Amino acid sequence: MFRKIDHIGIAVPNLAEALRVYRDTLGFTVDHQQRVEDQQVTTAFIPVGGTHLELLEPTSPDSPIGKFLAKRGAGLHHVAIAVDDIEAAIRDYTSRGIRMIDPKPRLGAHGKKIAFVHPKSTGGILLELCETPEK
Amino acid sequence: MFRKIDHIGIAVPNLAEALRVYRDTLGFTVDHQQRVEDQQVTTAFIPVGGTHLELLEPTSPDSPIGKFLAKRGAGLHHVAIAVDDIEAAIRDYTSRGIRMIDPKPRLGAHGKKIAFVHPKSTGGILLELCETPEK
Repeated sequence: MFRKIDHIGIAVPNLAEALRVYRDTLGFTVDHQQRVEDQQVTTAFIPVGGTHLELLEPTSPDSPIGKFLAKRGAGLHHVAIAVDDIEAAIRDYTSRGIRMIDPKPRLGAHGKKIAFVHPKSTGGILLELCETPEK
Repeated sequence: MFRKIDHIGIAVPNLAEALRVYRDTLGFTVDHQQRVEDQQVTTAFIPVGGTHLELLEPTSPDSPIGKFLAKRGAGLHHVAIAVDDIEAAIRDYTSRGIRMIDPKPRLGAHGKKIAFVHPKSTGGILLELCETPEK
């Protein structure tokens, strides 16, 4: 069911500043920036091996990332795992009593279908399932 | 310099309970458990694609993971990135003014050499560099 870790989401208050740290100081490369309206974020993707770090700057303080930053500060926000069939994964999880934040997939960056699992059902972490569209 | 994301560290108050959630409910497999004295944790590794989730239960409330749990609760703790030569990476980072929690490598799980970068130098996340010993 699980293909790989698709990305690790990192909440940052200021994307331009974060890019200076990750690219210019820490030595990572950045391959993609995108605004994702549905999640009220601007994202930048940093490839590492077969996965990515995804920097997330909120476009509004009332967004999920904006609230996370106000409560906890900059830091690790979620882990996204790639699955073959997200609808099947959601059905499977729901049938096992797992609480989904998104009972139906939403549209994420790169046209991916995404759905978050509630931290109450994971022992504390915010877990994203995602399915990459076929090209 | 960066080979891949080696693992994502997740702080949990009770490893047996966390394994029930990750293995029995969420459907992950668990391939390895180990006590790491130097870091005062018991760990379990969950393979996902070419990387791992690393569950970390503190062996003492005064340990770094114990303090993290007391302050922030269960959740994402650190991201570890595999490098070819950790001594060279530490020298490079130190020369660029990056603050290392570990200016010299320490011994981690699986006999890896590990060193943490201070969150002040990463914009908020706890970043681990690690080098896997040659077999």
